[in-house]
Amino acid sequence: MDWKEKKEISELRQDPVSRDWVIISSGRAQRPEAFKSRDLSARETPVGLCPFENPKEHGNEVVKTYPSDETGWAVQVVKNKFPIIDGQNCAVESKKGPYCVKDNAGYHEVVVFKDHRKTLAQLELSKVEQAVKVYRERYLELSPQACANYILIFHNHGREAGASISHPHSQIMALPFIPSDIRRSLEGSRRYKEERSRCAHCDVLGWELKEKKRVIFENESFAALVPYVPKFSYEVRIFPKSHRSYFEDIDNSEVAGFAEALKTSLAKIYHGLNNPAYNFFIHTPPADRDRDYDYYHWHLEINPRLATWGGFELGTGGEVIDVDPDEAAEYLREIRV
Amino acid sequence: MDWKEKKEISELRQDPVSRDWVIISSGRAQRPEAFKSRDLSARETPVGLCPFENPKEHGNEVVKTYPSDETGWAVQVVKNKFPIIDGQNCAVESKKGPYCVKDNAGYHEVVVFKDHRKTLAQLELSKVEQAVKVYRERYLELSPQACANYILIFHNHGREAGASISHPHSQIMALPFIPSDIRRSLEGSRRYKEERSRCAHCDVLGWELKEKKRVIFENESFAALVPYVPKFSYEVRIFPKSHRSYFEDIDNSEVAGFAEALKTSLAKIYHGLNNPAYNFFIHTPPADRDRDYDYYHWHLEINPRLATWGGFELGTGGEVIDVDPDEAAEYLREIRV
Repeated sequence: MDWKEKKEISELRQDPVSRDWVIISSGRAQRPEAFKSRDLSARETPVGLCPFENPKEHGNEVVKTYPSDETGWAVQVVKNKFPIIDGQNCAVESKKGPYCVKDNAGYHEVVVFKDHRKTLAQLELSKVEQAVKVYRERYLELSPQACANYILIFHNHGREAGASISHPHSQIMALPFIPSDIRRSLEGSRRYKEERSRCAHCDVLGWELKEKKRVIFENESFAALVPYVPKFSYEVRIFPKSHRSYFEDIDNSEVAGFAEALKTSLAKIYHGLNNPAYNFFIHTPPADRDRDYDYYHWHLEINPRLATWGGFELGTGGEVIDVDPDEAAEYLREIRV
Repeated sequence: MDWKEKKEISELRQDPVSRDWVIISSGRAQRPEAFKSRDLSARETPVGLCPFENPKEHGNEVVKTYPSDETGWAVQVVKNKFPIIDGQNCAVESKKGPYCVKDNAGYHEVVVFKDHRKTLAQLELSKVEQAVKVYRERYLELSPQACANYILIFHNHGREAGASISHPHSQIMALPFIPSDIRRSLEGSRRYKEERSRCAHCDVLGWELKEKKRVIFENESFAALVPYVPKFSYEVRIFPKSHRSYFEDIDNSEVAGFAEALKTSLAKIYHGLNNPAYNFFIHTPPADRDRDYDYYHWHLEINPRLATWGGFELGTGGEVIDVDPDEAAEYLREIRV
């Protein structure tokens, strides 16, 4: 087989055992013998080569500019030039052997911040507020689209966290399926509510706010804490303190509190853990608001990427937490930012 | 807080939403400000410093030597000096706020292969057969122990796959809970069986063996294939071709076929993908054979570590597959080993 002649496929396939949907998107692949040449040590995209310094000039299709005056832009939303999902062909599922298959469809956008070097932790608070408003606006714009089952908002910082371009940017995807982790989080939250007539996340939050030990920051409307049962060492989760099911319902007074909690948490991680790579993402219900997801409680998770996953993690589905969450929280709480 | 005075905790905690158990094992942690000094580029443990060159001399507690004559050993099983799980205190669960908690307990062993530089792909077939027999023997030894809910057998190759020591070794853990991915694989397999009165894995395997496209190797008793819905690019799974529920029931004639499929698959990955880091692990039912897991079909999964997980993967629970499984299989099938 001549690798250059390989066909590209882009479709969604469901595993019949786990019922998880997987995206097959072979257009982005490298040649197999090139796999070992990845350079994980490179940490910064040079300004002169950076495709996000002036997105339009570098051939990015600009979706929206904030503020709308282009010369003084602070945030630009562009279409991802190498989208993981793409296409408006919202096909029904078909069968292939024991599998369900459907066409790849959806939207993949990039939220580019103006400054090449300032991470969200270093931006002024007003700019982080603006970022949250952009997330909300794009959510509301994308969620009514056909095929948009779930809107994923996430941010990669650092090579080990999957950021191929160091210029600060978030990503927003309209996915044509409900991702497996979201589905499980919804199922678990619904089951808890059915069994105890209470929101699981409100119970956890109420206990944490009483215990105080693992809370690293709080204001009137939001709390940031290291979970008692984390998925990563030094993981931080940010919750609205009152029961709020849907991220996109956040109002302007809550935006300020959420932005403060996000910026403060990221700054504590930046200074306390020596600017590690991290990912953050929002977990919120699916985009189809006809269904009732009021049992859910949206939140944001920040995962510093401090450990290398091995066979234990891949074989079991989880990381060994090697830092006591009480001590991780105490350490981060005391970092002044 | 003086980090040197930090207490160590080691316990299991269950998330009330996902019901997943997480191991908190803080004895192995680094100081927080040291996190960025990890050197991912180091690829080989020098022979002179290698704790597995002569395990006993390096203070490892030897559990068993194969063959039993110590001077000519080929495989040694030792206790892990830095166990993730450890302890015979098989405590009942207690409540802490909205959480279930129990003591850390179990066994963590290392299976050390004699040769410092030969990976399993390069060992003679008879030595890979011996490795499989050692896995089986340790499984049968550990599974009747109190608290042993699940026996996990896995192997890390390369730094990016979590191997902190390059000397070839596998690991075996007796875990006091059923890991989340295993629980989900069991639940999905049971549901499929209930709905269709057939084994999900037999259905997949039957289809794959008829299609042939994604099979990279087969012999009388085992088949190695790139799954139609993989979890990783270039993932390979090895299944017994007849319905076999439990790994530990493998008989000596099957050991030969399994070892051949394992060695061949690892060699194809080694040569075809330029000796990448990888993990492999066995998925088999829990160790409590009183319960009936006959609907399950044990298998081994090999995951080359070619991609960096970012916010998409952590936020959704899965990797984007950027190589068409048909082409990955065609490429690996044609690699001569």
